[in-house]
Amino acid sequence: MTQLKNDRFLKALFRQPVDKTPVWMMRQAGRYLPEYRQVRSKAGDFMSLCKNTELACEVTLQPLERFELDAAILFSDILTIPDAMGLGLYFEEGEGPKFRKPVRTEADIDQLQVVNTAKDLSYVTDAVTMIRRELNGRVPLIGFSGSPWTLATYMVEGQSSRDFARAKTMLYTQPELMHQLLEKLTLSVIDYLNAQIRAGAQVVQIFDTWGGALGHQAYKIFSLAYMQKIINGLITHADGRDVPVILFTKGGGHWLEAMAATGCHCLGLDWAVDIGSAKNRVGSQVSLQGNMDPAVLRADKQTIENQVQAILQSFGSGNGHIFNLGHGITPDIDPANAKIFIDAVHRFSEDR
Amino acid sequence: MTQLKNDRFLKALFRQPVDKTPVWMMRQAGRYLPEYRQVRSKAGDFMSLCKNTELACEVTLQPLERFELDAAILFSDILTIPDAMGLGLYFEEGEGPKFRKPVRTEADIDQLQVVNTAKDLSYVTDAVTMIRRELNGRVPLIGFSGSPWTLATYMVEGQSSRDFARAKTMLYTQPELMHQLLEKLTLSVIDYLNAQIRAGAQVVQIFDTWGGALGHQAYKIFSLAYMQKIINGLITHADGRDVPVILFTKGGGHWLEAMAATGCHCLGLDWAVDIGSAKNRVGSQVSLQGNMDPAVLRADKQTIENQVQAILQSFGSGNGHIFNLGHGITPDIDPANAKIFIDAVHRFSEDR
Repeated sequence: MTQLKNDRFLKALFRQPVDKTPVWMMRQAGRYLPEYRQVRSKAGDFMSLCKNTELACEVTLQPLERFELDAAILFSDILTIPDAMGLGLYFEEGEGPKFRKPVRTEADIDQLQVVNTAKDLSYVTDAVTMIRRELNGRVPLIGFSGSPWTLATYMVEGQSSRDFARAKTMLYTQPELMHQLLEKLTLSVIDYLNAQIRAGAQVVQIFDTWGGALGHQAYKIFSLAYMQKIINGLITHADGRDVPVILFTKGGGHWLEAMAATGCHCLGLDWAVDIGSAKNRVGSQVSLQGNMDPAVLRADKQTIENQVQAILQSFGSGNGHIFNLGHGITPDIDPANAKIFIDAVHRFSEDR
Repeated sequence: MTQLKNDRFLKALFRQPVDKTPVWMMRQAGRYLPEYRQVRSKAGDFMSLCKNTELACEVTLQPLERFELDAAILFSDILTIPDAMGLGLYFEEGEGPKFRKPVRTEADIDQLQVVNTAKDLSYVTDAVTMIRRELNGRVPLIGFSGSPWTLATYMVEGQSSRDFARAKTMLYTQPELMHQLLEKLTLSVIDYLNAQIRAGAQVVQIFDTWGGALGHQAYKIFSLAYMQKIINGLITHADGRDVPVILFTKGGGHWLEAMAATGCHCLGLDWAVDIGSAKNRVGSQVSLQGNMDPAVLRADKQTIENQVQAILQSFGSGNGHIFNLGHGITPDIDPANAKIFIDAVHRFSEDR
């Protein structure tokens, strides 16, 4: 067990005082980095990169070489679980993820086996172990999973979707079938995240990318309830520390109170929410992660810095802020602008 | 001036008592109706249908023949203004709207002329006049426009978009240019909506379909501020009545207080918001329109009725509810289910 050299991120997650606001970026190991694209072309397709322990470790560490980031996040995909369930995940250039065998019928769902991470997804835990070793205590490592509802949408649609017609049809016409699917996914996610924690993940984040597409009632029944089960099922202490859980529902700003009540440690916020009012609502229970619109990274230095300051000011004094974007950094961003962003977070939060 | 036979919708807009909750559906004249598809195929392409006064009138009235709707909405498109500005709107099957000449540069924006509705969009006001005559006081007629920000996104992107990369880049890197564009659009929308009111529209709705893609600060500066200008510029009294304005920002549930403060009469809600809590927040200032997830219309009778009841219960007693979907009805819906929905609203709200 190596001593952490930078524990700003962990401290902020537990709402303890920090010298500067910690910052990391969703999808920080990604296509906007030329060195990532180089490794990616070596690996072949995207899933081959995810499944290659050395290369997954290499790209995880790349952004830390460039930027003063306060956390590393495992390089992987949110759809590894359905892939391990046999759905055949693949990526077509510029089209997002697709499944060769989408899940449509009761028989399809009956056949699905809860994932055994040790057997089916050892490439992920191997990567976690190697990254922890390579990080050597520089910053904490975040493990992650898609939420059951988010995984289910891709599995039922067979690909990304604008309106989730098939998934919502199943939800409304065969809710018991959707619950069966979500139950299997929930057990899989618990096993998967616990395996990541055992392998060395010091924080875990649940990405509920599509929870915000649901109505407020349906969200609680079909997304949040399963994330609650996951949180209840996670290892809470490992490696001599508590393991904090970050819950991120994109478009979930209406439901922060319910999300905070799950017992998670931190809520991820998209840019629709004013972080100051989010703090007023739930800041005594959880820390808050976010929430700059990634589109701001296309702007000039002054604009990026102004936006960083506006968010810091809105959060105000007090503990429990982790700076991040409100969603993943996009492939078109100049890495120089990512650096301006990260440095601005540290500089302006130190001044205060 | 014909006496209105059914003024339930207008009464609810002004938060006056009604015998049953009024209901209409966004995109109620649309592809889910076989009789619409028949007229559409007669007209040729979509814009030819919009520009044909008789046919636009015919399809506007179609859903009223089938269902006990409490309002009619002008059949048209939200992108008529940029089309009239010379951008060349066209539709490719299954792909959404596109522009032949998107707006990208300062010169592009300089060249744009504020729309003169009487000259450039008389087909719209002609349709309004004819529909009013044909309606003969059955129900009120809603006129509408896209919001300046929503129009701007399509004009800059040249088509629909997931992340509005170009529009947001302009917003963050050349805000003054974006403001110029929004200013021209705002003046155009005021002229356009006032012309619709003069031609007989008894209510107007501003569709801010993409306001919810903005951050909370940017929303106020680049979308809401211009809708405020529009509201300030609208004719408030026509045809012996006040003309109510409905403001609908999809994904705008965080900003209801600011939206209500514009002086509009009603806020449209998508399904992410609990209408009961929206009522607690702004129900003393405005009426509320919404908010069932259109996906529910794919379900069975019992599920549709349960969802209708849940929304009615959440709104509770008191005035100022107009039932609607949280977004447009989709082409795959069985009209029989639309009937179940509409009848359920009336039946369950009468019982209470």
